[in-house]
Amino acid sequence: MNGWSLLYEGYNPDQEGLREALCTLGNGYFATRGAHEESQADSIHYPGTYLAGGYNRLKSKVKDRVIENEDLVNMPNWLYLTFRINGGQWFKIDDVEVQHYRRELDLKKGLLLREIQFKDDKGRITSLKSKRLVHMGNPHLAALQTEITAENWSGSLEFKSALDGTVVNDGVERYRGLNNKHLEPLETDFFEKNCLYLKVQTNQSEIRIAEAAKHQVYKNGERIDVEYKKSEKPGFIGAQFHVDVKPKDTVAVNKIISLFTSRDNAISECGLAARKQIKNAENFEDICSSHSIEWKHLWNRFDVLFRSVDKAENNKMEITVRLYIFHLLQTISPHSMDLDIGAPPRGWHGEAYRGHIFWDELIIFPLLNFRMPEITRSLLIYRYRRLDEARLNASKAGYKGAMYPWQSGSSGREESQTVHLNPLSGQWIPDNSNLQRHVNSAIAYNVFMYYQVTEDTEFLSSHGAEMIWEIARFWSSLTQYNKEEDRYEIRGVMGPDEFHDAYPNAQKPGLNNNAYTNVFAVWVMLQAIKMFDLLPEERIGELRESIRLEDEEIERWKDITHKMKICFHEDGIISQFEGYEKLQEFDWEGYRKKYENIQRLDRILEAEGDSPNNYKLSKQADVLMLFQLFSSDELSSLFKRLGYSFEHQTIPQNIQYYLQRTSHGSTLSWVVHSWVLSRSDREGSWNLFKQALKSDIADIQGGTTKEGIHLGAMAGTVNILQNSYTGIQTCENVLWLNPCLPDNLEYLEMVIRYRGHSLKLLFKRDSFKIRALRAAEKPIKIGFKNQVYEMESGTSKEFEL
Amino acid sequence: MNGWSLLYEGYNPDQEGLREALCTLGNGYFATRGAHEESQADSIHYPGTYLAGGYNRLKSKVKDRVIENEDLVNMPNWLYLTFRINGGQWFKIDDVEVQHYRRELDLKKGLLLREIQFKDDKGRITSLKSKRLVHMGNPHLAALQTEITAENWSGSLEFKSALDGTVVNDGVERYRGLNNKHLEPLETDFFEKNCLYLKVQTNQSEIRIAEAAKHQVYKNGERIDVEYKKSEKPGFIGAQFHVDVKPKDTVAVNKIISLFTSRDNAISECGLAARKQIKNAENFEDICSSHSIEWKHLWNRFDVLFRSVDKAENNKMEITVRLYIFHLLQTISPHSMDLDIGAPPRGWHGEAYRGHIFWDELIIFPLLNFRMPEITRSLLIYRYRRLDEARLNASKAGYKGAMYPWQSGSSGREESQTVHLNPLSGQWIPDNSNLQRHVNSAIAYNVFMYYQVTEDTEFLSSHGAEMIWEIARFWSSLTQYNKEEDRYEIRGVMGPDEFHDAYPNAQKPGLNNNAYTNVFAVWVMLQAIKMFDLLPEERIGELRESIRLEDEEIERWKDITHKMKICFHEDGIISQFEGYEKLQEFDWEGYRKKYENIQRLDRILEAEGDSPNNYKLSKQADVLMLFQLFSSDELSSLFKRLGYSFEHQTIPQNIQYYLQRTSHGSTLSWVVHSWVLSRSDREGSWNLFKQALKSDIADIQGGTTKEGIHLGAMAGTVNILQNSYTGIQTCENVLWLNPCLPDNLEYLEMVIRYRGHSLKLLFKRDSFKIRALRAAEKPIKIGFKNQVYEMESGTSKEFEL
Repeated sequence: MNGWSLLYEGYNPDQEGLREALCTLGNGYFATRGAHEESQADSIHYPGTYLAGGYNRLKSKVKDRVIENEDLVNMPNWLYLTFRINGGQWFKIDDVEVQHYRRELDLKKGLLLREIQFKDDKGRITSLKSKRLVHMGNPHLAALQTEITAENWSGSLEFKSALDGTVVNDGVERYRGLNNKHLEPLETDFFEKNCLYLKVQTNQSEIRIAEAAKHQVYKNGERIDVEYKKSEKPGFIGAQFHVDVKPKDTVAVNKIISLFTSRDNAISECGLAARKQIKNAENFEDICSSHSIEWKHLWNRFDVLFRSVDKAENNKMEITVRLYIFHLLQTISPHSMDLDIGAPPRGWHGEAYRGHIFWDELIIFPLLNFRMPEITRSLLIYRYRRLDEARLNASKAGYKGAMYPWQSGSSGREESQTVHLNPLSGQWIPDNSNLQRHVNSAIAYNVFMYYQVTEDTEFLSSHGAEMIWEIARFWSSLTQYNKEEDRYEIRGVMGPDEFHDAYPNAQKPGLNNNAYTNVFAVWVMLQAIKMFDLLPEERIGELRESIRLEDEEIERWKDITHKMKICFHEDGIISQFEGYEKLQEFDWEGYRKKYENIQRLDRILEAEGDSPNNYKLSKQADVLMLFQLFSSDELSSLFKRLGYSFEHQTIPQNIQYYLQRTSHGSTLSWVVHSWVLSRSDREGSWNLFKQALKSDIADIQGGTTKEGIHLGAMAGTVNILQNSYTGIQTCENVLWLNPCLPDNLEYLEMVIRYRGHSLKLLFKRDSFKIRALRAAEKPIKIGFKNQVYEMESGTSKEFEL
Repeated sequence: MNGWSLLYEGYNPDQEGLREALCTLGNGYFATRGAHEESQADSIHYPGTYLAGGYNRLKSKVKDRVIENEDLVNMPNWLYLTFRINGGQWFKIDDVEVQHYRRELDLKKGLLLREIQFKDDKGRITSLKSKRLVHMGNPHLAALQTEITAENWSGSLEFKSALDGTVVNDGVERYRGLNNKHLEPLETDFFEKNCLYLKVQTNQSEIRIAEAAKHQVYKNGERIDVEYKKSEKPGFIGAQFHVDVKPKDTVAVNKIISLFTSRDNAISECGLAARKQIKNAENFEDICSSHSIEWKHLWNRFDVLFRSVDKAENNKMEITVRLYIFHLLQTISPHSMDLDIGAPPRGWHGEAYRGHIFWDELIIFPLLNFRMPEITRSLLIYRYRRLDEARLNASKAGYKGAMYPWQSGSSGREESQTVHLNPLSGQWIPDNSNLQRHVNSAIAYNVFMYYQVTEDTEFLSSHGAEMIWEIARFWSSLTQYNKEEDRYEIRGVMGPDEFHDAYPNAQKPGLNNNAYTNVFAVWVMLQAIKMFDLLPEERIGELRESIRLEDEEIERWKDITHKMKICFHEDGIISQFEGYEKLQEFDWEGYRKKYENIQRLDRILEAEGDSPNNYKLSKQADVLMLFQLFSSDELSSLFKRLGYSFEHQTIPQNIQYYLQRTSHGSTLSWVVHSWVLSRSDREGSWNLFKQALKSDIADIQGGTTKEGIHLGAMAGTVNILQNSYTGIQTCENVLWLNPCLPDNLEYLEMVIRYRGHSLKLLFKRDSFKIRALRAAEKPIKIGFKNQVYEMESGTSKEFEL
């Protein structure tokens, strides 16, 4: 194992699902995985080719309940390639004796390599090597090379390769009861002697998907002609061919595939485009090489170098950080910029959460902002395109402005489920997660942070300010004025902690004055007001006219920023929501004894007829997220403005209080807690960081990784290195740095972009160094310890800590 | 008539086609016109709703020749609305006595207003007023209000309103022999009591198009309920309803329509989106008002104020300039930014040139660059998306780099016809226009000029440099080294002057060393080399690695910039191409006597069995275009670099020479000539400017305007005011001004954007003034008469001339 390869030795059927998820390949346009691409015909557990932003809506009947779901589309399987010897059974890994099994994900080059050697029931020993990629330069291209060596036998080696559109969405076990057949067959063709073509359409959203594949066969390195026999059924086109082999002969089959959909730009019709691309495709080696060059360029921007004092853990940590960056870039890449897609919580790696867009962008964008902010821009425009739908969503619920949904589907409509299944109890339980209005603040935050890093005033003018204003407007209309207290309140919502959706035994869902929600809403209004300084007067006038923003509304925003209610416990702890203090303390010790894993206390308690709503416990402590998103100076000034105290001890006291009452039921929880501890408890933070690093690689969520990786947790973990330990903050026109490396972290190095500049940052425990690489003309302002330094391009600066 | 309304009084059947084209409404997403929307059922000459970038390819058989064409798609007609009295004949304007007819295009508000009063054969007098818009805020929305007053009769007034998908492409007479049915019916529905729904699909490109329409009926201002009767056939859904009226009763029918296609972002399925939008649509008045607000904001950016000393002509000139800006903004608007479209030569106003993308962007972009450069950016990305296709185009023709086609279709493929019809002779003649390789230089120029105005280094880094390099590479590979002369040559191409496509009696098409092509190719290589200074070294390395750009290639570019061949006549005139001097002089006087209009000498000569290839004549003098695109300093330095002389007299001498030999067969010709004369012959320039202003409004191209307006000529004409008379030039980091107003031009005022600044410019004949409105922090550099001034935001500066 080197610093760039995720390696698995040995076949382990129980682990293959997880490994598959972690070895999924993608390029921001599509992603694919397949447990046994060499035996796709039989193994349909994990294989999937998921289309970025391709959704389809189906109705299902489950126990007399009609459930309508919009799902990520599982595309025709292009990995289908199997083989047999002398007309016997098609290869199945479970039928043979596996003598050697190795899987390597080469993160540097973006290749998945596999080796198997096996003995079949006739004593024949066969070796199989495969190499696979989804092209990072040309988003429409993928390739698979399969090499088979007859180690000790002679005979006819027969292959069957196909494009299989008969696939269903069955990657998530608990969804399997639902209708899952999304594709309708349209066309198949066998062309140019060695090429396959398949076209299908999603049955509701009518996205047409075309795939084409070309085959090249080599025997002992020499290209050979084979005779292809067509095999066809609706939605399926295959080709069979055979090669006679002697012992030690190696046959290689290169399968190059192209994929286009009816939503693509610069095409006439997707089928034509797919076929043309395949006709003109390069050979496998050239495709590999151009693919790896693009990965190299991405790594130039995204790599994070660091070293722990504990040498033993370095290699594994390094690979994991890179794996997380790798999966982010496979989901969101330069190719995303031209697509209408958002940042899905599970990547395009599996079907969990159905590809909907939640609030994970809040955790993902900081990494992108400092590396390739143009990608963030496109993801923000994805939200802007759905602003009208958010306006409609607000007005239908009786509010003003724009209310973005908790789970946003293809059209930007609310796709949150209204019931969900508890696998522990088998019960369908009401799901009120759509009351998580805080997603709106996350969107406004993302707009503003993108602006801070890029100074892209044009974006603010054309898209950003309008979004921030419409969100501020929504918060303002959701906020009620409490005359008695002379305070504004937000009632009936949910915070990020999903264990609490109502008061104990309440008839109606929702909680009042969730601190995270209220503070964040005030912050949004402050930024909304700031827009008046950031944009030219004329443009302000136009925008206000377009959305009919009145003076009284702005006055109310100002008033709210002085009078929003935040609740506190008697001892000064910020209440997660009004009344939290009155809830029962939870028997943590008892439950830890009773259950092996208590991360998902919601399911445990519901199955026991109880409810997390009754207790002081949280899936993730949402008060603490405030300390991740905002600096203590910013919070202190905001609390002061509201007339509340925010002391030096507020942050550590709250951390201590809530950390004791958190089950870490969300993968994001480790990230938040490592982050907020980075100043007050460096060792604790480092340990939680290491815990966060494990969350997907070791699948600590009890098997959910195989349903798709956790993109927020992945990006958030890398962000601990990038933003938390370095103390990077953008404020007005200054890039502030305030490094505070855990004792275990020897050094940390990366290149970030800031307002057109490229900056090389090198942190050690007692100093840090900045080199302003050549770029924008304008000097850059660096802030450190209350002082601001101007740096010219090409210069370096070193600071002692 | 005020400064904002194009007004036509009186019905003139011969002029309606032209008027319709000039009154076409659009919003950058779709455009629509309809000669008689009140009688669509019968009148299908001009009506059309064209979809931005919606193409479909059809095969036709014409005289045993199979012709394949990709065409702009004519969408279902939503204007269909007709009426009849007491069950009589449906209204036809030709059946009645028109007593009053008035058509007003309100440019300020983006409304088309029409009034007709007529008497039918039963002596009934009826008045009709209509108001129409295609929404500039919401690209998917349009609306039509029709008011009918029974002036002197009682009875049943019956309406028939429909969405008609049975339309064909028949807007251009000479294409009518070709297959023109692009739409296949898919679905119709009558819903929510007063709503229609239609879905169709283009038969080759499979673009699905959904329209929905809602009706609201008023009698004397009161909303009334009417009973709708469905009328349906494949591809057609209509509703009939009637209202009983007495003399002086007025019935108003408001029809609100929505349009979505399968290529739209932020939708699930286009039919759902269209229906949802219509259900939630505002009423007609609110739609009018929000629409007009967006137009107001566009005018804030795009208006040009000027006054001629000849008061009589002021009003007409002002309206025409605004009309030209209006049509540009109806074709290319903020809504274009999210679409995969280019700048079509005839707007989305008619079917001529089939919506393909030519080189007109070269003339259109300067206007956009200085007003809303973000639109230019999206149009450049349209080209970038087709870079791979241009690479394929080059490699198939045996060249390196990227060869963009002369007529670019939906996939970026070459769509130039190989034969065209001469309507004068009835002959199909070989068409070699695809040899106009100079379109590639235009694209590189557009990239570089966008960068100059915006300093958008990010764009250069992600898209622009790669395009410029690949185009330079193409030119380099097309260029041959002539050892004898130690010069590089470009052989076998066509310049912009389409009257010359071959040498007299030559077997093969193409000309050698076209001056425009060769000079421009050198310019492209100089910019390609400049990229090494503009981008960071790391990025240069990455880009070079991605496209495998070798040192030798760059060396060859450098060499070519010193040794490209330009041909000159004996008297020093720049030869349009090698050998031009040897062609016969043309009998201009004789032909002017013989033919009324000799603009299209190509058709005249071909019909006479002769050819323009034999003569010193041009459709537009392409040598002169060099003087429009480049400053005399720039040309002088380029010629010097090549070892040729470029004297003070070179420009006027060439102008004089070629102006005498030009038929102005292209609408762009007037623009170019007015432009190049602006320094040497102010009065001549002003007269040509006025001529250019007439080109579409008076349809001086012999009736071609009704097939679609001439967008290049329109934008180019406005550009004479914006860039030529002001002498605006961007060079390195300085905005140079060198105003030279014609004596007839009293003043000229406009607001432009430059590198994040907003500048108010006011020109008089003896002075000019600049006000830097608030915007970017960085001071702006203004150059005037060899001196550079820095200006801070908020300051003004006045210069004497």
